[in-house]
Amino acid sequence: MNCSKLYRSMGIRLDLAVEAHDLLRQEVGSDIPGVRVFKREQDQVTITTVKVESPQGEQAMGKPAGNYVTIDAPPIRENNREKHLQIAVILARELEGLLSLGPDDHVLVVGLGNWHATPDALGPKVVDFTLVTRHLHQYAPEELQGGLRPVSAISPGVLGLTGIETSEIIKGIVEKTQPRLIVAIDALSTSAVERIATSIQLADTGIHPGSGVGNRRAGITQSTMGVPVIAVGIPTVVHAGVIAHQALEALFREFQTSPTLYKLYKGIQPEAMQKIIQQVLGPHAQDLIMTPKEIDQLILNTARIVAGGIAQALHPGISASEWAQYLQ
Amino acid sequence: MNCSKLYRSMGIRLDLAVEAHDLLRQEVGSDIPGVRVFKREQDQVTITTVKVESPQGEQAMGKPAGNYVTIDAPPIRENNREKHLQIAVILARELEGLLSLGPDDHVLVVGLGNWHATPDALGPKVVDFTLVTRHLHQYAPEELQGGLRPVSAISPGVLGLTGIETSEIIKGIVEKTQPRLIVAIDALSTSAVERIATSIQLADTGIHPGSGVGNRRAGITQSTMGVPVIAVGIPTVVHAGVIAHQALEALFREFQTSPTLYKLYKGIQPEAMQKIIQQVLGPHAQDLIMTPKEIDQLILNTARIVAGGIAQALHPGISASEWAQYLQ
Amino acid sequence: MNCSKLYRSMGIRLDLAVEAHDLLRQEVGSDIPGVRVFKREQDQVTITTVKVESPQGEQAMGKPAGNYVTIDAPPIRENNREKHLQIAVILARELEGLLSLGPDDHVLVVGLGNWHATPDALGPKVVDFTLVTRHLHQYAPEELQGGLRPVSAISPGVLGLTGIETSEIIKGIVEKTQPRLIVAIDALSTSAVERIATSIQLADTGIHPGSGVGNRRAGITQSTMGVPVIAVGIPTVVHAGVIAHQALEALFREFQTSPTLYKLYKGIQPEAMQKIIQQVLGPHAQDLIMTPKEIDQLILNTARIVAGGIAQALHPGISASEWAQYLQ
Amino acid sequence: MNCSKLYRSMGIRLDLAVEAHDLLRQEVGSDIPGVRVFKREQDQVTITTVKVESPQGEQAMGKPAGNYVTIDAPPIRENNREKHLQIAVILARELEGLLSLGPDDHVLVVGLGNWHATPDALGPKVVDFTLVTRHLHQYAPEELQGGLRPVSAISPGVLGLTGIETSEIIKGIVEKTQPRLIVAIDALSTSAVERIATSIQLADTGIHPGSGVGNRRAGITQSTMGVPVIAVGIPTVVHAGVIAHQALEALFREFQTSPTLYKLYKGIQPEAMQKIIQQVLGPHAQDLIMTPKEIDQLILNTARIVAGGIAQALHPGISASEWAQYLQ
Repeated sequence: MNCSKLYRSMGIRLDLAVEAHDLLRQEVGSDIPGVRVFKREQDQVTITTVKVESPQGEQAMGKPAGNYVTIDAPPIRENNREKHLQIAVILARELEGLLSLGPDDHVLVVGLGNWHATPDALGPKVVDFTLVTRHLHQYAPEELQGGLRPVSAISPGVLGLTGIETSEIIKGIVEKTQPRLIVAIDALSTSAVERIATSIQLADTGIHPGSGVGNRRAGITQSTMGVPVIAVGIPTVVHAGVIAHQALEALFREFQTSPTLYKLYKGIQPEAMQKIIQQVLGPHAQDLIMTPKEIDQLILNTARIVAGGIAQALHPGISASEWAQYLQ
Repeated sequence: MNCSKLYRSMGIRLDLAVEAHDLLRQEVGSDIPGVRVFKREQDQVTITTVKVESPQGEQAMGKPAGNYVTIDAPPIRENNREKHLQIAVILARELEGLLSLGPDDHVLVVGLGNWHATPDALGPKVVDFTLVTRHLHQYAPEELQGGLRPVSAISPGVLGLTGIETSEIIKGIVEKTQPRLIVAIDALSTSAVERIATSIQLADTGIHPGSGVGNRRAGITQSTMGVPVIAVGIPTVVHAGVIAHQALEALFREFQTSPTLYKLYKGIQPEAMQKIIQQVLGPHAQDLIMTPKEIDQLILNTARIVAGGIAQALHPGISASEWAQYLQ
Repeated sequence: MNCSKLYRSMGIRLDLAVEAHDLLRQEVGSDIPGVRVFKREQDQVTITTVKVESPQGEQAMGKPAGNYVTIDAPPIRENNREKHLQIAVILARELEGLLSLGPDDHVLVVGLGNWHATPDALGPKVVDFTLVTRHLHQYAPEELQGGLRPVSAISPGVLGLTGIETSEIIKGIVEKTQPRLIVAIDALSTSAVERIATSIQLADTGIHPGSGVGNRRAGITQSTMGVPVIAVGIPTVVHAGVIAHQALEALFREFQTSPTLYKLYKGIQPEAMQKIIQQVLGPHAQDLIMTPKEIDQLILNTARIVAGGIAQALHPGISASEWAQYLQ
Repeated sequence: MNCSKLYRSMGIRLDLAVEAHDLLRQEVGSDIPGVRVFKREQDQVTITTVKVESPQGEQAMGKPAGNYVTIDAPPIRENNREKHLQIAVILARELEGLLSLGPDDHVLVVGLGNWHATPDALGPKVVDFTLVTRHLHQYAPEELQGGLRPVSAISPGVLGLTGIETSEIIKGIVEKTQPRLIVAIDALSTSAVERIATSIQLADTGIHPGSGVGNRRAGITQSTMGVPVIAVGIPTVVHAGVIAHQALEALFREFQTSPTLYKLYKGIQPEAMQKIIQQVLGPHAQDLIMTPKEIDQLILNTARIVAGGIAQALHPGISASEWAQYLQ
């Protein structure tokens, strides 16, 4: 069955390029023209780079051309500080690979999302933990600035809290403060339960309309902002419809030994599948998100790691042990 | 298929008596001996009373003999204060039906759950909103006490935060302060997504081991506490396994027109079903809970309603409009 | 002794025009040219309007020409919702007196201050309680907009949190969203302990550099923003130096019966007074602020009242009882 | 003038033994019989031990016989993690000096105070940061317990929140869980502004009625609890009356060159002084507390240091670098 179509019709979006690609490849049964994928492993961490390289790839993936790096790091769930530091180092290195900055270039860190909704509060939490230094460059003597790039940070809130499009707020600040780069952090949805709060996606294409837990309305991209935008996304939710759908898929896989059943399965239309799922989930189907019981703690852990990785990537003059202090 | 068995083997508990009963009745196909059910409707609110009346009923339901009143109130989700007040009035009236108190009897309100985990924080939030008066009876002149029953309130935390069994903390306080009744508020799990933060279960049987979002280890009941315990439970989560299972059930209902398929479905063992579900949910299957994106806001709304209903039921001397003030 | 000079040399600022005027008038012993003062009382509330009307008045007061309305409302401290509503109505009426708006003019509410520092968090708290409607005008059908003016709201944080001048952030948003008016809320300092969290100052001159608990660096005024700025300020702190100084003043008043002592007092130079005060307060003298033990609760009460008053003033279509609902 | 008498009549309590002693010694002009004082310095930290050794000493000091160790550590105010760790090590060593515990003795950590009032929230914050292990001893395999003493922790709230005397709650828990020692953390008042959030007092005499920011009503001592109680107190507030009084004292010291003035000063009765101070502070004089603008941040810093010191003192099996991890 065409899952991509089912998901689209149910308003379910695959925020992670790696998931969109895997689903597509499985449906098509062959490589996707215009998309290349590279995978590396290191300790318990897998790093997958999806490169969307042509209009054909963009069309197939539903994502603009660019680099999408996913760090799958299951040890984030362990309460082990050493492992968290290691993951932050990996994140810093991958982030550096996407950056092209002069030593004094100003970077604006943007924490997207609603601080009053736990699964959407990751961006604001990262901003809370971010080492802000731009004002030191303006007001403090030079010797205090050593190795610290000018970094500013803002959590613009969401439309329902401010009455203003998030992108308008950011654009206004960009025009006033002229950063050379935006790093935008956002909570994402995933179709794989085990990725919640353990995967980190970096993308040099920015934030696109409709993505994220809060369904950001307008894009935050180089074309809207006038400066490059690196998106750092962490899945924090899974749609209930995905769970329901995957249960149905698993059942049919069980039945694949029977040609009759398999044929039956192949014949189910996305519309019928959607009807079944909505029957289960009720009228609020589209709003239902699933999250581990420990989401508050996971958000804290992940936000510290992301803030640490960003600090290390942006401030060349401070060591891993030094920035670890900022994470307290 | 025997869902009760499947749920048990997956560690999924039906905290709401009305759900346990509905499932059972559906499997058995007839009334459950030792259990009686009454249903009333009022405006948009449905009130279902499940009376477990014999050891046979206890065995079938997996719940001790007593009264379980479920108030299904979908308008809780609406941001309409008038409707919230109406629901609190209904809650107060149903709560009064379970109480038997002299005018100056001391009541201890207990907010179970972990204040650091949003879906488990409902009990502590209700305690935050509770009108506490016991100290006024001890220290203030009598004219200030008019119509206010002595009420104390505590959020004992959870084992992981305190290192102490919650029931030990409460028992210690009960022995010191000698309340005549405990009202214990807890977050529950449900098998019906639409009940999350819209249903309220009152039970005169107390809190039983293994129930609730936090899987309370030990019971808080008349037999452990020495005084009656009214449990006020609100579903805040649904197990992912329930979603997955219901999707499978819905599929088979679709297929019931075909005798072959129906026979096939009837033949699936709970073990096979469990295997399919665990395949979908991964190794953390048992910890996965599902919650609407707006859980933080829903917890706030519901906690205010519950605190308001309790205040009105316990303090005969204050009117609905007066206690509404305490809810701010 | 010249208190104004002493305060200036100690870095103590009188944020309330009514206090700056009273001190000045006492020192000068006569009316201040270019400044007029009007006082009204209503129930337990005193409303004082200070009009700074000429460059001479500006110079004397150290404040730009304009209207400064102080509402002294001691009942804010009482936990009485009816009185809080009355004060919000008075605030709404006084605010309306300073506004000149067409029915669909967009208003931007700005909550100044640091949400991580309780006495400086008043502005952000008011924004939390603000009824935001601008997006409804853009996205909702007209019938849902009835009587609701387009209002947006933002808490821009402080320089230390964002690395960006607060005024830059606001200016950026103003340019993007083109409001017709800014209402800026800020926590102030006072020289009168009893005014903490019970007085509200409205000023049609905006926020000036150096004012407020957080010592805002740059102004938020019509000349910097391009649109009128109404400042709503609430005193939340008193400088320790003011307490110390007032104790010395009170002592000398006690001694005024003795001509010798009085002469002695008149002879004390501000420098000597400052030395004594710094001796008491230690090296951190300038940072020491004083606040009632209940500041967290007072901030909550006052923020609700201010948000309520603003809502009523801005949204003509909703009644007092209706907006009271938004304050929950 | 007799300051002790003045303070008493104004309801100002000297929670720190070192302050009570210094004031007394200054008034009396000689050593206090039954009280011995030892002072050590180390880096930037001063450790003063006040030993109250006889009924005569108790009477003079207004404090029960026992050991009061004050660690004055101004570097707490610096945002320097290394220095914070050093202070935690000093705290751990001094705490160990007051303990007498077998390796598996259960310790109950109690965080006194009101979590809704920033300056009184220090105790609950320390409990938040406390490494709780008692349940591991009960439920986990022995190899996971290595070097970890059984520690439980509770924040019992305050009378106004619970309606129950704090001491009743603790006593109930003590009877149920049988700890061998209580460590009770409380926020204190000081008469020296520079001690706020930089001094730590350890006392083997427990918590006494009337002490602390929240004016605890009943004592938490060996005689009420049945087990030894170590009090860990941190000053977070100074009474406004103390500031006012010290300003008057400083003025008179300035005037000491004049015999006439000095005589005058010596002749002022505490009643007159109190009248002057109340004139300055207004009707709420007794409730006025003074706190640095950065109290929220100071509470966080200090709570981490105290929790770290307690962890290191109680758990012999974990190193300084290991427990540092728990402080994140």
